[in-house]
Amino acid sequence: MTPTVNNGPIEGLIAGFKGFRAINYEKMAGRLFAKLAREGQSPKVLLIACSDARVDPAILFSASPGELFVIRVVAALVPPYRPDGDYHGVSAALEYAIRDLGVEHVVVLGHAYCGGIKALVEMEDGKVQDREFIGPWVSMAEQAVGDIPKTEPSCRHEQAAVRYSVQNLMTFPWLRERVDNGAVALHAWWFDLDGGHLMMDAQGSEDFVKLV
Amino acid sequence: MTPTVNNGPIEGLIAGFKGFRAINYEKMAGRLFAKLAREGQSPKVLLIACSDARVDPAILFSASPGELFVIRVVAALVPPYRPDGDYHGVSAALEYAIRDLGVEHVVVLGHAYCGGIKALVEMEDGKVQDREFIGPWVSMAEQAVGDIPKTEPSCRHEQAAVRYSVQNLMTFPWLRERVDNGAVALHAWWFDLDGGHLMMDAQGSEDFVKLV
Amino acid sequence: MTPTVNNGPIEGLIAGFKGFRAINYEKMAGRLFAKLAREGQSPKVLLIACSDARVDPAILFSASPGELFVIRVVAALVPPYRPDGDYHGVSAALEYAIRDLGVEHVVVLGHAYCGGIKALVEMEDGKVQDREFIGPWVSMAEQAVGDIPKTEPSCRHEQAAVRYSVQNLMTFPWLRERVDNGAVALHAWWFDLDGGHLMMDAQGSEDFVKLV
Amino acid sequence: MTPTVNNGPIEGLIAGFKGFRAINYEKMAGRLFAKLAREGQSPKVLLIACSDARVDPAILFSASPGELFVIRVVAALVPPYRPDGDYHGVSAALEYAIRDLGVEHVVVLGHAYCGGIKALVEMEDGKVQDREFIGPWVSMAEQAVGDIPKTEPSCRHEQAAVRYSVQNLMTFPWLRERVDNGAVALHAWWFDLDGGHLMMDAQGSEDFVKLV
Repeated sequence: MTPTVNNGPIEGLIAGFKGFRAINYEKMAGRLFAKLAREGQSPKVLLIACSDARVDPAILFSASPGELFVIRVVAALVPPYRPDGDYHGVSAALEYAIRDLGVEHVVVLGHAYCGGIKALVEMEDGKVQDREFIGPWVSMAEQAVGDIPKTEPSCRHEQAAVRYSVQNLMTFPWLRERVDNGAVALHAWWFDLDGGHLMMDAQGSEDFVKLV
Repeated sequence: MTPTVNNGPIEGLIAGFKGFRAINYEKMAGRLFAKLAREGQSPKVLLIACSDARVDPAILFSASPGELFVIRVVAALVPPYRPDGDYHGVSAALEYAIRDLGVEHVVVLGHAYCGGIKALVEMEDGKVQDREFIGPWVSMAEQAVGDIPKTEPSCRHEQAAVRYSVQNLMTFPWLRERVDNGAVALHAWWFDLDGGHLMMDAQGSEDFVKLV
Repeated sequence: MTPTVNNGPIEGLIAGFKGFRAINYEKMAGRLFAKLAREGQSPKVLLIACSDARVDPAILFSASPGELFVIRVVAALVPPYRPDGDYHGVSAALEYAIRDLGVEHVVVLGHAYCGGIKALVEMEDGKVQDREFIGPWVSMAEQAVGDIPKTEPSCRHEQAAVRYSVQNLMTFPWLRERVDNGAVALHAWWFDLDGGHLMMDAQGSEDFVKLV
Repeated sequence: MTPTVNNGPIEGLIAGFKGFRAINYEKMAGRLFAKLAREGQSPKVLLIACSDARVDPAILFSASPGELFVIRVVAALVPPYRPDGDYHGVSAALEYAIRDLGVEHVVVLGHAYCGGIKALVEMEDGKVQDREFIGPWVSMAEQAVGDIPKTEPSCRHEQAAVRYSVQNLMTFPWLRERVDNGAVALHAWWFDLDGGHLMMDAQGSEDFVKLV
C-alpha cells in the first residue's frame, strides 16, 4: 500500500544530504572522502551509544567523518561474550573494531532519560508488557541495575548499566588481552541531558564524576 | 595496566564535547536540549546504518539532535524476526522505534567499501578466518549476496544486502502490519563514497538509482 | 554609567567563541589557525557585502577561516576612486586586498530587503530624515538607482546598486589594470532572502539570473 | 578580457552556498530566513571587525543568521565623528545600527598579526610606500599607536588601536548619549590567533586580559 505518512522527514534527510554533499564533495572537492574511500577507515575510537535520537555521538562530540566507529543499540548495552555461531550484532561490531581496525579506545556512553533502562527498572517478572525484544534485551543488565532500589534517581540505574557493559567488554578474551597489556583503554561515560555535562566513571566514586 | 595508547583521540572527543556544550547549552541556553529532556524524543525516522566511521548518519544527513533514531551494526544488517527471548540488539531497537516511538520511516543505509560485506563475499565455508562473530553475523545475508558472482562490483553485493535487510524488516509482524496499512514507509539506500551520491532502491531497476 | 542592557547577546558571543575555540584549537589542535598565524592570510576572494545581520558571507557560503577577505558596509557600496589622503575605509580595504594580498576575485553581494537601498529610494532632496551619515553614504548610488522608478520591485534598485559598485571598482586604476589583463575577475551577485537563491548579473539580461 | 584566474575559489563559494541553501531553505524549509525576510533584522550586537580572512566574526562566535550586524574594514578602525556630508562608510553603518536598529552592544574586535596595524607601525612620514589609501586610513590611529615604541610586541599596538576606535565611538553624540544613559554597552576585544584566546580591555590593566 502506498504510505500515507508525511514524507517531510525523508525530504529533510535528502536536503541534509545535499548540504553534506555540497560541502564535502563540491566545496572540498571530496578530498576527505576521496582519502577515506581510497585508504579505508582508521578510527581510533569505538563508541558504543544508545539508539536514542538525542544522543547522537557525531553531534555530541563534534566528530568528523572517519573519527568514530559506532555501535548503537538500545541503552548502549554490551552482551557478555558468547561465541556460539548465532547472530550477535554488538559482538560482531566489537570484534571488527578491535581485531580488524585496531581501535585503541572503547567508550560506552549512557545517558539521562534512557527509555531502555526505564523499561528495565519498571519490568515485571523479566517482561516488558506487550513487547517481544525489549524485555529480553535490557534484562541482561537486570542484576547490575536491580541492585539499586527503584526509587533511586534514574541516573544511578543508567550509570550502573554503563558499568555493566564495560564489565562485559572484559569477557571478550581478545579485548581483555589488549586492555591488560595497555593496548586498549576502556571508558565509561554518561551524558547529562539536563545540564549538558559529560560524566565519567571514576574509581572510588559511586556516582560518575564530571568530565566537562 | 595503565594504557600506553595515545590519549589524543579521547582528548579530541572531550574538546568536541566542549564545542557541542558551548553551542547547545551555553549559547542556545540549552533550549533544544531542555525541550528534548522534558518532552522526550519523538523522531520520525529510524535509520539503520553501518558502524563504519565514514558513514555517520548525523554527518551524512546534516541531522539535528532528536531527528534520527539510529541503529548501527556491521553492514546495517537486520536479522529475521525470531522472538525467542534471547538478546537481539537490532530487533529490540527496531521494536522500540516502531512500537514505542512510532517512527514513520525506516531507512536501511548501506555504503561502498563495506568491510562487513567484503568479509561475507570472501568468506570460505561460512567462516571468516580467525574471527568468532563477524562470520556468523554477516552470513545471515549469505544467500541474498551469494546469488551475485564474486567478480561483480562490490556495490552489487552491498545493495543486495540492503535489500535483504529490508525484506527481513517485513518479517516482523508489527512492522509488516504498519507497512501494509501505510503507517510506515521503508527505504533502501546506499551511499556512494567515491562520487558522494545517495542511491536508492527503485522498482524495476537492478542497480540502485541516484537520489542525490 | 553601568549599562542596563541585557548582557545575554554578549554571553552568547562568548559561548559561541568557546565553541569555536574547542573545535578549532583544542580538537584540531589549532592546526589550521597555527598555519594561518604562521603563514599569514592568503584569500583568493574579496567579498564586499552589506552589514545586514541576515547576509553574513561566512554563513551564506559555508566559508572556512582564511577563505574570504571581507568588507562590510551599508548596502555593500563601493565609492568611486578618490585618492585625496582622506579616510576611505572601503578603498583602503580594496587596495590591501588587490595590491597586498593579490586576491583574484572581487564579489559585490547585494541582497533583498536592504535597508540602505530602501533609505536611498525613499530619500527626499538627498537627505534621510534625522540622519547624518546614512543619507550621504547611500546617495553615492543616487543616479544609478534613481533611473529606476520608485514603484519598481526593490530588487531592481538593489541590483542596480550592485552594478554601480562594480562600475566604481573599475575606476581604481590598479584594479582596472588587473581586470583588463585577466588577473582579477569581478562578480555582481544578489541574495534572494525569500527564495534562498543566489542571483548574478549576466550580460544581456536586465534582471540578475539565478546562479543557484 | 576573459579572466585567466583559477575559478576554483568561486566554485567553492557556489558549492558552499548550495550547502547553506540545502540546510537553511530545503531542510529547515526556510523557516528562519522566511522570518528574517518577513520581520527584518533585529540584531542586538554591532560587531566592528577587521577585513582579515582569518577573523571572520560568524566563524569566531559561531553566530547564527541575524545575530550580528557587522562592519569590516582594515584594522577594525572607527574614524572620529565628522558629519560633513561626505561618504563615511563606517559612520553610516554605525549610525544605522545605533539609531535605526537599536543595537545594545558595540564590539570592536582587533586581532593578532593585523596587516593594517603593521603598516601603520612601519609607516614613514605618514605614508605606506606605493599605496594610496592604506596609509591615510591607518594613520588615523597614528598618535594612539605611536605612543608605543615600535619594538614592543605587536599586540600592544593592535590593542591600542582597538582602544582608539572605542574612544572614537564616544565622539558620536547619539552613541555617547546612549552609552552615558546605559542603553548601549561598548566592548574592546582582541583575538589571539596563536593561542586561540579572546582578550578584552579591562580597567586598570595595560594589556588586555583573557576573557576565554
